[in-house]
Order: sequence, then C-alpha cells, then structure tokens
Amino acid sequence: MLNDQMKQTIFYLSDRTGITAESLGQTLLSQFESIAFVTQTLPYIDNEKKALEVVELINRNARENGIRPVLFSTLVQPEIKAILHNSQALMLDVFEHFIAPLEQEFKIHSSHRVGKKHSSEDKEAYEHRIHAVNYALNTDDGLAIKQYSKADIILLGVSRSGKTPTALYLAMQFGIYTANYPITEEDLENYELPSWALQFKDKLFGLEIDAKRLQEIRTERRANSRYSSQQQCEFEVKEINKLYTREAIPTINTTTHSIEEIATKIIAQSNLKR
Amino acid sequence: MLNDQMKQTIFYLSDRTGITAESLGQTLLSQFESIAFVTQTLPYIDNEKKALEVVELINRNARENGIRPVLFSTLVQPEIKAILHNSQALMLDVFEHFIAPLEQEFKIHSSHRVGKKHSSEDKEAYEHRIHAVNYALNTDDGLAIKQYSKADIILLGVSRSGKTPTALYLAMQFGIYTANYPITEEDLENYELPSWALQFKDKLFGLEIDAKRLQEIRTERRANSRYSSQQQCEFEVKEINKLYTREAIPTINTTTHSIEEIATKIIAQSNLKR
Repeated sequence: MLNDQMKQTIFYLSDRTGITAESLGQTLLSQFESIAFVTQTLPYIDNEKKALEVVELINRNARENGIRPVLFSTLVQPEIKAILHNSQALMLDVFEHFIAPLEQEFKIHSSHRVGKKHSSEDKEAYEHRIHAVNYALNTDDGLAIKQYSKADIILLGVSRSGKTPTALYLAMQFGIYTANYPITEEDLENYELPSWALQFKDKLFGLEIDAKRLQEIRTERRANSRYSSQQQCEFEVKEINKLYTREAIPTINTTTHSIEEIATKIIAQSNLKR
Repeated sequence: MLNDQMKQTIFYLSDRTGITAESLGQTLLSQFESIAFVTQTLPYIDNEKKALEVVELINRNARENGIRPVLFSTLVQPEIKAILHNSQALMLDVFEHFIAPLEQEFKIHSSHRVGKKHSSEDKEAYEHRIHAVNYALNTDDGLAIKQYSKADIILLGVSRSGKTPTALYLAMQFGIYTANYPITEEDLENYELPSWALQFKDKLFGLEIDAKRLQEIRTERRANSRYSSQQQCEFEVKEINKLYTREAIPTINTTTHSIEEIATKIIAQSNLKR
C-alpha cells in the first residue's frame, strides 16, 4: 500500500488530444480520495519513436519512485499499443475494453485508425460551436440586445454571479447560443424585468448565488467598496431571488457548482439539446 | 447488421454531468464511420426513481427502433447500476471495467459515492481556471497589454485566424493565462513585431491559417470587402508567416484543426503545464 508520503504517478496517453483519457481518469481517480496523485498527459503519441520515448519515461518514473505508474490509454493503433504494453506500468486500455463489444454489437470491424477527418456533419457541428462562442462574446454582459432573437438561452444574474464563464462554456462545449445580461441595482429597485425581456420570457434563466460567496468574489475585484459590501450583496441577492420567483424564471444556484455542472444542469432543466 | 436506413441509438448515462461518458463514447464511435448514430445524454441520474424512468425510455427506444441501444455509463452507485442492468441495452460500464483493477493496484476500496466535494486543491485549481477565463477576456484582441507580464502565453495572428476561441479554450480547460494580439496590416508593412513584444519574446505563439480558409471566414463576416478579398488574405498570410520565421516564433496552422487540437498542440509545443 502507498504510504502518506508517496505519490502515485498517473499517465494519460493518447494519439490525439488526450482529453478523453484525462476526463475518464479524473472521474475514476476521484473515487480514491485518500491517495495523492501526480498526473502527466502525453498527447499525440502517434508513431513508434514517440512510443519508445514514452516507455523510457514511464520506466524511469517507476524506477525512481519505486511505485508502478498507472496508464490510461486511448491509443488506437495496435503497433503503438504493443510497444506500450512493454512498459512497467499498469496499462488501462480504453480501446481494448470497449471496441471489441462494440464490434460484436455492430457486426463490423472498427477502423483502428487515428484522427479521422471530420465528416461533413461534424464540420457543421464544429462551426456551429465556434459561431456560438462568437455569439456569446458579442452578447456578453448585456451587449447587443438586438441579437437576442438568435439566442437559445439568456442568462440573468447580478454582477459576478458566474454569467460569463457559464455562457462561454455552454457555447464552446455544446454549441448553445447563450447571451447574458446583468441585472443591476436599478432593475432591482424598479421591481420589474428590463423591458426587452418581455418578448423573450421563455429564454430567460436566472443564476443565483449566496450573498457570502458573492461578497468574497466582489472583494477580490474591488475591496472595501459599496459594491463588495455585505449589505449591498445581501440586498441584491435577496431582491433578484424575489424577482425570479415573481416572474417564474427557472434558476440554478451557482455557489458550490463548477461551470461544467452549472452548464449541464441548465441544459437539463431547460430541455436544450446538447 | 444495421442497414443504411437504420440509426443506432446511443445513450450516455451519468450521475453527474455526463461529459466523461460523452467524450469516451465519441472517441470510440469515431472508429465506426459507416454507422449513423443518434445520441442522447442523460445526466444527473442519481436516484432510483430517475433510473427507472431511464430504463423505460431505453426499452421504449429498443421496441420502437427494433435495434438494441448502446449505453455508455459512468454511474457509480451499485444500486442505481443494478436497475440499469435490467434495461434492454448493451451496457458498457466504465466503472465496472476500471475501478476493480485500480482498487487492486492501490490496495484500497474506492468510495463508490457520487459527486465528491472538491478538495481544497481542486477548489484552487478550479478558481485558477475561472481567473484564467477572465484574464483571457480582459486581454482579448490586444486589450490590456500592460497585463502581459501575467500571461503564460500570448497568441499572435491575423484577424480571424482563431485567436479568441483558442485563448478561451486554453483558459477554460487548462487554466492557462492566455492573451491574444491581432497582427495588423500596419504591423506587417513595418516588417517588425509591435514594440511591446520584445520583452515577451518567449511567450509568443503564432497562429497560421491558409489564405483560402481565411477568405471564407472573413467573407462570412464582411462579404465583398477589401478585408475579405483574395489579394488581402494572401498578402497577410504570406507576410505573417515570414514574420514568424524571421522572429523564430513557434507556430501552428489552425486551418484543419479543432480548437481542442490547436490548444493541446500549443501546450505540447511550448511545454506549458496542463
């Protein structure tokens, strides 16, 4: 067993970006809270020379640490994988485990080739994502309201409640046209939605945040100001939550969630297509 | 075997965001180019009631399509998984395959619990990512040059060569402080780098793009203009490539790569930490 001073090395290995291997590994390793991990991603390992260098790196790590490293691999090419199987690591091979049952199910052989060109549909979906990112930037923080008819969703929230990162993530990961609009103190004192919002009622989604967390974030930005004062943060939070309730706007509380969680929960709640 | 008119349904199942299951599934399915897939992601399946609804949905799909659906699952809780094992789908269970060898390797049991709170280190890493996103926005398109001392990397390129989405992705996915600066016609005619660049020479990274593709993108934005003309695009591309060579700035050609690929290749080439 690992003792408290030792760290377990994890390698993520891929012939492409390595993002899938990382994502899978992080999910699995989060189940072992008591272990300290050191991770290294090795992407674009797509020829035998690079594979041999990786084996050397792994074996050196095993020798120096005295602990067998763990390898998450999404390598596709059999001849590259064969080289890695000779390393002194526990190799968890995503392809080996899942490609065989899929081939059997679909009754065809998979291509075992790396980095397919995007099909025409993929290309379209990709360009849609890039357009969505540009849209999110163009409509950030209440800009370009006249483009709201193109929005899939319009995020509302007080300043620093997480609107911009959430909008960018929804656009980048899922190609969702996401605008965001800051609800100001003036809006809150008027006890009504800004006038543009009436015709887009079904696209509105409210971000909530706890007053204490809001104060922390605002203090980072502008310490000792009215903007970051406890009183102001509590006022804005209380009033915007009332506004959401009064106008029956669906909401999510962002306080303890990551942008990945916030974005996927918004999609689920509003029946958007991911 | 599936015939040409039929589509294979894929479900991505998770008790959290579903992003890992999607990422893994997309990687594997890209190996079966001849099959048409219809995919649906079912995130936050974290109680028995939801699990039973999913089984119903899957079984209805199997009945109506006459093809057994495939399920990629990152479900963690044994009692939820047990319910899903009764559905009429081929269930590919990421946890079942990989948790056991990891438990054996680490000689401890995993927690089999969902959605761990972030540890303090995770929280720090998360906040770093959000700060990096804000940094990328604050320094987008040549803004706030006086903040360049904080940059991990500064992307250069002509207008519409992919600087902004790449910078945002590097920040959001990897927490890398990424600024971006547009090289203008004036810079190119002066045959030199902008004056601020001299002290940040080791942070510069150049985006290349083929003139034909640049023309397409600029035409979408402003058709029939000098900006989107063949002559102008060819001039800018030729001159910026000369500039990169002359100044020994590392580069990547963005023409046929996705932002995920561009970002991960930049990291690999410049020895940044992901």
